[in-house]
Amino acid sequence: MQKLKLGMVGGGQGALIGGVHRIAARIDGQWELVAGALSSDPARAHASAAELGLDPARSYADFAEMAKAEAARPDGIDAVAIVTPNHMHAPAAIAFLEAGIHVICDKPLAATMAQAEAIAAAAAASGKRFILTHNYSAYPLIRQAREMVAAGDLGEIRLVHVEYVQDWLAEETSGKQADWRTDPARSGAGGCIGDIGTHAHNLAAFVSGLEIDRLSADLDAFVPGRRVDDNVHVMLRYKGGAKGMLWASQVAVGNGNALRLRIHGTRAGLDWAQEDPNQMRFARFGEPTQILTRGGAGATAAGLAHLRTPGGHPEGYLEAFATLYAEAAALIRGGAAEALPGIGEGLAGMRFIAACLRSSEEDAAWTAL
Amino acid sequence: MQKLKLGMVGGGQGALIGGVHRIAARIDGQWELVAGALSSDPARAHASAAELGLDPARSYADFAEMAKAEAARPDGIDAVAIVTPNHMHAPAAIAFLEAGIHVICDKPLAATMAQAEAIAAAAAASGKRFILTHNYSAYPLIRQAREMVAAGDLGEIRLVHVEYVQDWLAEETSGKQADWRTDPARSGAGGCIGDIGTHAHNLAAFVSGLEIDRLSADLDAFVPGRRVDDNVHVMLRYKGGAKGMLWASQVAVGNGNALRLRIHGTRAGLDWAQEDPNQMRFARFGEPTQILTRGGAGATAAGLAHLRTPGGHPEGYLEAFATLYAEAAALIRGGAAEALPGIGEGLAGMRFIAACLRSSEEDAAWTAL
Amino acid sequence: MQKLKLGMVGGGQGALIGGVHRIAARIDGQWELVAGALSSDPARAHASAAELGLDPARSYADFAEMAKAEAARPDGIDAVAIVTPNHMHAPAAIAFLEAGIHVICDKPLAATMAQAEAIAAAAAASGKRFILTHNYSAYPLIRQAREMVAAGDLGEIRLVHVEYVQDWLAEETSGKQADWRTDPARSGAGGCIGDIGTHAHNLAAFVSGLEIDRLSADLDAFVPGRRVDDNVHVMLRYKGGAKGMLWASQVAVGNGNALRLRIHGTRAGLDWAQEDPNQMRFARFGEPTQILTRGGAGATAAGLAHLRTPGGHPEGYLEAFATLYAEAAALIRGGAAEALPGIGEGLAGMRFIAACLRSSEEDAAWTAL
Amino acid sequence: MQKLKLGMVGGGQGALIGGVHRIAARIDGQWELVAGALSSDPARAHASAAELGLDPARSYADFAEMAKAEAARPDGIDAVAIVTPNHMHAPAAIAFLEAGIHVICDKPLAATMAQAEAIAAAAAASGKRFILTHNYSAYPLIRQAREMVAAGDLGEIRLVHVEYVQDWLAEETSGKQADWRTDPARSGAGGCIGDIGTHAHNLAAFVSGLEIDRLSADLDAFVPGRRVDDNVHVMLRYKGGAKGMLWASQVAVGNGNALRLRIHGTRAGLDWAQEDPNQMRFARFGEPTQILTRGGAGATAAGLAHLRTPGGHPEGYLEAFATLYAEAAALIRGGAAEALPGIGEGLAGMRFIAACLRSSEEDAAWTAL
Repeated sequence: MQKLKLGMVGGGQGALIGGVHRIAARIDGQWELVAGALSSDPARAHASAAELGLDPARSYADFAEMAKAEAARPDGIDAVAIVTPNHMHAPAAIAFLEAGIHVICDKPLAATMAQAEAIAAAAAASGKRFILTHNYSAYPLIRQAREMVAAGDLGEIRLVHVEYVQDWLAEETSGKQADWRTDPARSGAGGCIGDIGTHAHNLAAFVSGLEIDRLSADLDAFVPGRRVDDNVHVMLRYKGGAKGMLWASQVAVGNGNALRLRIHGTRAGLDWAQEDPNQMRFARFGEPTQILTRGGAGATAAGLAHLRTPGGHPEGYLEAFATLYAEAAALIRGGAAEALPGIGEGLAGMRFIAACLRSSEEDAAWTAL
Repeated sequence: MQKLKLGMVGGGQGALIGGVHRIAARIDGQWELVAGALSSDPARAHASAAELGLDPARSYADFAEMAKAEAARPDGIDAVAIVTPNHMHAPAAIAFLEAGIHVICDKPLAATMAQAEAIAAAAAASGKRFILTHNYSAYPLIRQAREMVAAGDLGEIRLVHVEYVQDWLAEETSGKQADWRTDPARSGAGGCIGDIGTHAHNLAAFVSGLEIDRLSADLDAFVPGRRVDDNVHVMLRYKGGAKGMLWASQVAVGNGNALRLRIHGTRAGLDWAQEDPNQMRFARFGEPTQILTRGGAGATAAGLAHLRTPGGHPEGYLEAFATLYAEAAALIRGGAAEALPGIGEGLAGMRFIAACLRSSEEDAAWTAL
Repeated sequence: MQKLKLGMVGGGQGALIGGVHRIAARIDGQWELVAGALSSDPARAHASAAELGLDPARSYADFAEMAKAEAARPDGIDAVAIVTPNHMHAPAAIAFLEAGIHVICDKPLAATMAQAEAIAAAAAASGKRFILTHNYSAYPLIRQAREMVAAGDLGEIRLVHVEYVQDWLAEETSGKQADWRTDPARSGAGGCIGDIGTHAHNLAAFVSGLEIDRLSADLDAFVPGRRVDDNVHVMLRYKGGAKGMLWASQVAVGNGNALRLRIHGTRAGLDWAQEDPNQMRFARFGEPTQILTRGGAGATAAGLAHLRTPGGHPEGYLEAFATLYAEAAALIRGGAAEALPGIGEGLAGMRFIAACLRSSEEDAAWTAL
Repeated sequence: MQKLKLGMVGGGQGALIGGVHRIAARIDGQWELVAGALSSDPARAHASAAELGLDPARSYADFAEMAKAEAARPDGIDAVAIVTPNHMHAPAAIAFLEAGIHVICDKPLAATMAQAEAIAAAAAASGKRFILTHNYSAYPLIRQAREMVAAGDLGEIRLVHVEYVQDWLAEETSGKQADWRTDPARSGAGGCIGDIGTHAHNLAAFVSGLEIDRLSADLDAFVPGRRVDDNVHVMLRYKGGAKGMLWASQVAVGNGNALRLRIHGTRAGLDWAQEDPNQMRFARFGEPTQILTRGGAGATAAGLAHLRTPGGHPEGYLEAFATLYAEAAALIRGGAAEALPGIGEGLAGMRFIAACLRSSEEDAAWTAL
């Protein structure tokens, strides 16, 4: 099968997530990176392109020019990956959608709700695919957990507990990653809530299938001088009566990238942690807790769908990310990929951020989404 | 050294915590059980006493009679352990305090705030010791954690996360333990919040040294027909600016007795779980996480104070409980035991329960303690 | 029920295991310590007795005198606990057996095979009980594991892997515990093999029910100048065709008291570690691994027999040790205690030590027990 | 930079390790698969090639033809990956080496020692690179462990314990993977010892830097009718006095791919398990055990050399495998890759297999390598 052609906006030298997208696109052999506007700084953009072996003719100084030029080429890109800081998602995404090019975009969807809605409108108008890289939802055991919940294995869901805790911003820090994430002009009004809180929110929604009715959020910026939140506490009330708690932090010293989801229903509970993603604890009421493993005994169809190696050969973050690219390819080729996150998840995430910010400003008042 | 003489109110056949107190009292050889009013049912009381080998003359049908009779004996008890359902703590405790007998009482302090205050008044008037068995605070690594926090090893505390989750009440159930704990007349208005939420609250306060300013609580009774809460979500704001979350549940399927405390400061974080109590994770910012072990390298004076066996020989729940009895003995003999919980902790726990109930009734309004 | 009367030989000030025996004897309230020859140094013996509150008339300078005197008293001891260095087990045990007093003795049975056989002969002649404190066999999940193996839950056993690794002798050290354990005159010719290797051997035999046919052992003394082994590697061939490996070490830096047993059969496997004794992994072929917990779902009769607290309230080393004392009491009172280790296990341990030493001297030649 | 051109022998439909090699080659974007003799069955070979999108002109029915044709093309392959059953490694490797093409070959090196030596001779004569995919040696923390040992962080090594246990052959089974691995004509005389024992051996040697002096091996075929070993016990004596144990099994029910390495020296010990590869326990004598994480605090240069994502974003089996391909590319381009395994490691592995087989046949006699 021919590889699909991928372009990239952002992700030049010094970037983190751009490199992740490139590896993810390569893993399953469905994509070829052929074009890019890799930095807002043209010199850095071209140097980055050269380093990656791109045809210099397809290294652009500017995403608008890139969208136009690629749309005009007979061998133009099939999709673009947008891996810039949040405030650039909307202009870039809209430019490519309007040029008739599918978009794969990092989360959160945008820096502001208005931008998010503009992307949604552009996506709808374009008829093109818009994929949001909520990569944690693509871990095999997360896919399996979702299928188990949907099948009623947990009974009626009562409780959802999700936490995503890090410590890399525990002190005042600088550097490419920290700078834009703590700058409201580039990240949006949310800091931790937008950067990782949205992942936690998405994961909980993805697996539980529940919709938040109201939430009560208490946001803090613990590091003196920080202009965005670096710790987030939220109590959740779901439609239908389930309850939940969400904790996101970038100042919890001793934590790397500790995303964990626990769901408890009337019949069973499950517990999964991203840093040890090849196993999940599952307990039916009154029975011994089971350790379910990726691809192991008890695996469901969704848990087996993207099995690259047998159980015991740990797959990780990059493989889960690659599944998004594999499914994006399938979708663009006309197949189905019902678990792949898109505009809907992006808007839900933005509403979650907005509700948390609003609630926190009002002394953690209960706030509808 | 002569053993101290212990009496017991409650703890007859079919009881759980009475047996725990008796083992705890025996472990360090400081106490001898010599008298009891072991059940509110006189026949059961006497049968229980016989089973335990008590002198029949000191098996009482009634705690009031027992208090009077023991106070009158030249060889009367030094202290009484009160291990009844919550609503009986106050009458029993007051009877013994007024009789001039030290009291060791299970938590929570009482079923109502009025009862709690009456106990406090009686204790103050009596000049006798009142010890509240918040046993989890006596684990060696918890004592050590408290000392580390106080010494500034964690820097300034920013975050406190405590959870205490079980599943034994996930379905409607009956039996001696479940019945009184879900009956407001015997347990007080709080269910889960009183039974285990107070332990979580106490543990967090004990180690962090922080005082709650305001809290926002969301309590649920998930099991149909249940008259008290079985799940508790709380957001915490501490004096001085730290924040916290507390989750207590008796319906989280797959959990046994999962009490866990995490504290994060500006310099370091710690993580301890009751079901694996002989180790604690401790991480200084930018350094590898350390696994501190009971009595192992890095142990502080408080962590070493009650070392019955060397590291690697796991001690557990009963040994921590025994430390309370050893310290109670030391106190009664005129020594010091500054970490031993008493009336102050009991009142703090009652205020915590009351604030949670009030907050939850008012839609999780922020409530001062 | 009347408490049984216990005497103790050894276990004076500075001793380790004597204190463990005393706590273990107290935990279930079946025993009362009333007499002792607590040290081979009479001054220390009496000081230790005073500290423990023994009647000075029953603090003996000498075990022989004690055996005679206690046998003569109408209120003499029911049993004696022998907690001396290994070389004193035989003279003490024989003295008490000949005086008609039951013996509870620490392991290994003796310092030499000749002593061991003399004890066995004395025990047989006396008609008294002889109990050997292989305490690790009394953990509830170990009792359960044995029952599961016997019931065929694992199918036919193919593999037994046991390891017991520590690091406290990784460097040349001194002190009461280290001194006698590294002195062949007091410990016997085996060092690590006798001190902890026998525990590992006993645990494997206890659970698997298998008998060693031949073994090949490679013993080392890694610390310069050490006169006994401090590391032990053994390959095992069991009667019936199962195979095994045993590793015992006192120089494995980073290990506290890491005793672990794994058994694999045709149908299932299990995995238990002493430092986390309240859970055991159990996996049937082709099914998810289960986490069995002490007293939890799937517990067998033997796993429930000595349940002092519900699951989730961790019990440990002292409780397992206490089970031996509870069963010793039952036995002496005429009951049954089929899992309690005695002379047979002691002789088996001595034969194991001897075979390992002999094999190792002969370049790890296969050696029958 | 131009991608290097890769050919593949074996790895057609139904194969396992071929797919792993292809993903590994793609991850870092250094390789492009352009040619193959993907199966010994020509129809399957061409169908597999079509599925992978290979140019039909470069899908060969036969490796000999492929070596000749590719060597003749101006755009011929830079290297070939040989991923056949063991008995085909030698003929294929020699054909490509003689054609002047670098070889990347799966382990073990060959089915027989004679074949292994023939490969070695061909490699030496060719002046081409020969890379053996001992992929476990490329995990970042394993590279770091090796560097730490070499730097003396553990002191003088005393003990090496390595185990590699699985359960997939616990019963008689069939299927492409099982069939050739249990057929001596295709796997060589060793079964488990060759398939995974060599990985364990390589890992221990790679990290410890130690050379085995003599070994004593006890091999079994537990499954009735099996013609090769499925369980391996080995005691090791290293040059210089260190000792070790190795256990490899394919019948240890409940284990997936449980490769674990522990090394203990005079100053410190380390413990790493492949199924949880992003952390390693490290303990200096008398200090708390540290949890070292991939790329985290304390990481060494080698531990950081192939960091694709920050700590907390788990990398796994495929990423470690990819590091071999990245290093192979570097080597072929004239760079250095001193940790990359090659002919030396391959011959060492074959000598290890041979010594184990010989020792086991002679009742586990001590056997030099």
